[in-house]
Amino acid sequence: MAVQNGYSNKKQLDVIVVGAGLVGSLEALYLAKRGHRVRLYEFREDIRKTPQARGRSINLALSVRGRRALKDVGLETHMIKEHGIPMSGRRIHRTDGSTYVIPYDANTKQNIYSVGRNYLNGLLLQESEQYENVERYFNHKLIESNLKKGSLTFLKTDTNETVNVTADLIIGADGAFSAVRKAMMKQPFFDFSQKYIEHGYLELCIPPADNGGFLMPANYLHIWPRGEFMMIALPNQDCSWTVTLFMPFTKFKNLDTEEKLLAFFEKYFPDSIPLIGKKKLVEDFFAVSPSPLVAVKCRPYHVEDKALIIGDAAHAVMRDLVTRPSYKLRKAMDDFIFWLLPNFWVPLYNSVTFSTMPYSRCIKNREWQDRVLKKFLSIVGIGALIGGAVAFKIKYYS
Amino acid sequence: MAVQNGYSNKKQLDVIVVGAGLVGSLEALYLAKRGHRVRLYEFREDIRKTPQARGRSINLALSVRGRRALKDVGLETHMIKEHGIPMSGRRIHRTDGSTYVIPYDANTKQNIYSVGRNYLNGLLLQESEQYENVERYFNHKLIESNLKKGSLTFLKTDTNETVNVTADLIIGADGAFSAVRKAMMKQPFFDFSQKYIEHGYLELCIPPADNGGFLMPANYLHIWPRGEFMMIALPNQDCSWTVTLFMPFTKFKNLDTEEKLLAFFEKYFPDSIPLIGKKKLVEDFFAVSPSPLVAVKCRPYHVEDKALIIGDAAHAVMRDLVTRPSYKLRKAMDDFIFWLLPNFWVPLYNSVTFSTMPYSRCIKNREWQDRVLKKFLSIVGIGALIGGAVAFKIKYYS
Repeated sequence: MAVQNGYSNKKQLDVIVVGAGLVGSLEALYLAKRGHRVRLYEFREDIRKTPQARGRSINLALSVRGRRALKDVGLETHMIKEHGIPMSGRRIHRTDGSTYVIPYDANTKQNIYSVGRNYLNGLLLQESEQYENVERYFNHKLIESNLKKGSLTFLKTDTNETVNVTADLIIGADGAFSAVRKAMMKQPFFDFSQKYIEHGYLELCIPPADNGGFLMPANYLHIWPRGEFMMIALPNQDCSWTVTLFMPFTKFKNLDTEEKLLAFFEKYFPDSIPLIGKKKLVEDFFAVSPSPLVAVKCRPYHVEDKALIIGDAAHAVMRDLVTRPSYKLRKAMDDFIFWLLPNFWVPLYNSVTFSTMPYSRCIKNREWQDRVLKKFLSIVGIGALIGGAVAFKIKYYS
Repeated sequence: MAVQNGYSNKKQLDVIVVGAGLVGSLEALYLAKRGHRVRLYEFREDIRKTPQARGRSINLALSVRGRRALKDVGLETHMIKEHGIPMSGRRIHRTDGSTYVIPYDANTKQNIYSVGRNYLNGLLLQESEQYENVERYFNHKLIESNLKKGSLTFLKTDTNETVNVTADLIIGADGAFSAVRKAMMKQPFFDFSQKYIEHGYLELCIPPADNGGFLMPANYLHIWPRGEFMMIALPNQDCSWTVTLFMPFTKFKNLDTEEKLLAFFEKYFPDSIPLIGKKKLVEDFFAVSPSPLVAVKCRPYHVEDKALIIGDAAHAVMRDLVTRPSYKLRKAMDDFIFWLLPNFWVPLYNSVTFSTMPYSRCIKNREWQDRVLKKFLSIVGIGALIGGAVAFKIKYYS
């Protein structure tokens, strides 16, 4: 069934989206709904035909922003009701195996949802088949761009042919190593930075229980925080868990024998060993190398009205320094005022994760809160000083 | 005359240097002296055949580090004695036209030298002709690299042919927009940032006096500091001055008519107008667009033992925030202790500009000084606090 175009009175553009990952396929649906012609080009083969790659990030936590986007393209109900697994908080694992819960949003009781990345990607692509104005091209590698002219050259990796295409608008949704952004870098005044963090990540798996259920309480994001490294686990539809170990590469390198690996897990994550299974742990750990994490920032995100980058291509990785004492203090103050005045004071984490407030407003909001807290703390500080001085005076001079 | 190779017992490498600017041609001489085979590739034509481009940075301040390098390749005496113009300090111009001097190095009385960039570049290239083991290729643009294999592909821009070359070692001295660095960026774990600063620069000229002499006192770097913008002038061999105006691009854009430009100069740089000449000022200002300044940082600087980047390719622009009050306070303290203990306390500026101390030691030195000053200030601060408290007590309670 071809979906009707609800915006036929507006100018219809010929748009090329580079990258058919989550961001690219979603963008294609948005554009298609508005009646634009969309050609979606992807370097890899069609993810719907690809077997799950081992050791790559396979699930993600979907929050209100992601749900809103899926709702706009008619997929929210299916993803949340049929596929997503609600997580109401973080379940923290101590080294002795005991756990406690930190709710995500104690005030408004919102959940985040664990969903399969490939499943969602496939669903978005599948949905795009409903639109006559979307074309999909897989195994197409972008090798040359003239963004101002709106022209791109792709290499068909299966046949080794090159194809030239032009469009009114080019949208680069081609990830942290974006080829579209590389072309933008040739423009004058393009600020860019890429920085590899010292941590890599490696994925392990906790299988379903023998009775087909979950081996851990399902409705949580499980976390094993251990200072400079940590492990997390997200639930999957088939009752397995995707376990991700984040750790400095130097530490990964040190764990170069089965013995060292098991000693390490027995020391820091003992409760996870029977869940993952000793044999499977060793097998999976040594099967792949840990993957790097790169932080990418750039400015601007566009070239005139001809090209635009979105998603990881524009800004990859936002690290939360959750272990810093200053972070913890700030979080405690934030949570307290949020509990006191929920409509007035929404902390940054909550505005990002549990609202659809534009990011620009989230940031302004945070800046305003920073100013208030600073003033408050300086008044409290001066108060304490005066109080102390008065107490001192009373004690020694009265 | 072919220069003898003094290192013939060491392994002779086949080295390609990309970029025949100051850094590349100097590096070629160093390598040639050590007996290596050097092929020097340059994208532009031979600078010795190029007429001086208008509005490009044409002179530079040579300090002890640059002199040391020139000495190593046998060119110091010529550059300093025959060509360079000594500058003993900054001559600061106030808006009323009056001036005062800040010496560069009041302690050891060292000068820095104003030299012509193109002259020096030509001299270095000329010197390389003395070596049989140096080959020079101009109009060669690097278009493809496999650094691990040591292979490069150049496009000959005059004939449109491509040539493939291989070497034991590739050295990228190809400036802030380095093509060698671009190839390095494909390596995993390569951190990189480029950031355009809001200021652009534009070059003007003060001609020689009618009698052939200088129109301003010659042995100074002249500075017109004006807060968020500034103008500097360096003396040239022919008794002219190269004047460089640094200013935010937004401000450059506002000066879009002859009237606005002259009103601006009359307000901020009145003494420079008769020196530059009203007609020439207007002509030169509108003849070219201001040039951008980009700050480049990256890490690492090499790919195994096959490739290395040096000069601006590795690290471009080090900005001195000389207008910050904290900078001024620090400089005053630094200069005082330096005057007191010249062998013990060498400030960062002096160690960089007036010594050949390795940069790594300059930085360590500075960190050590920072720690000492911090401790000193906290003791002074606590002392002041105790002193104040005692004074307070004496006044009110005795």
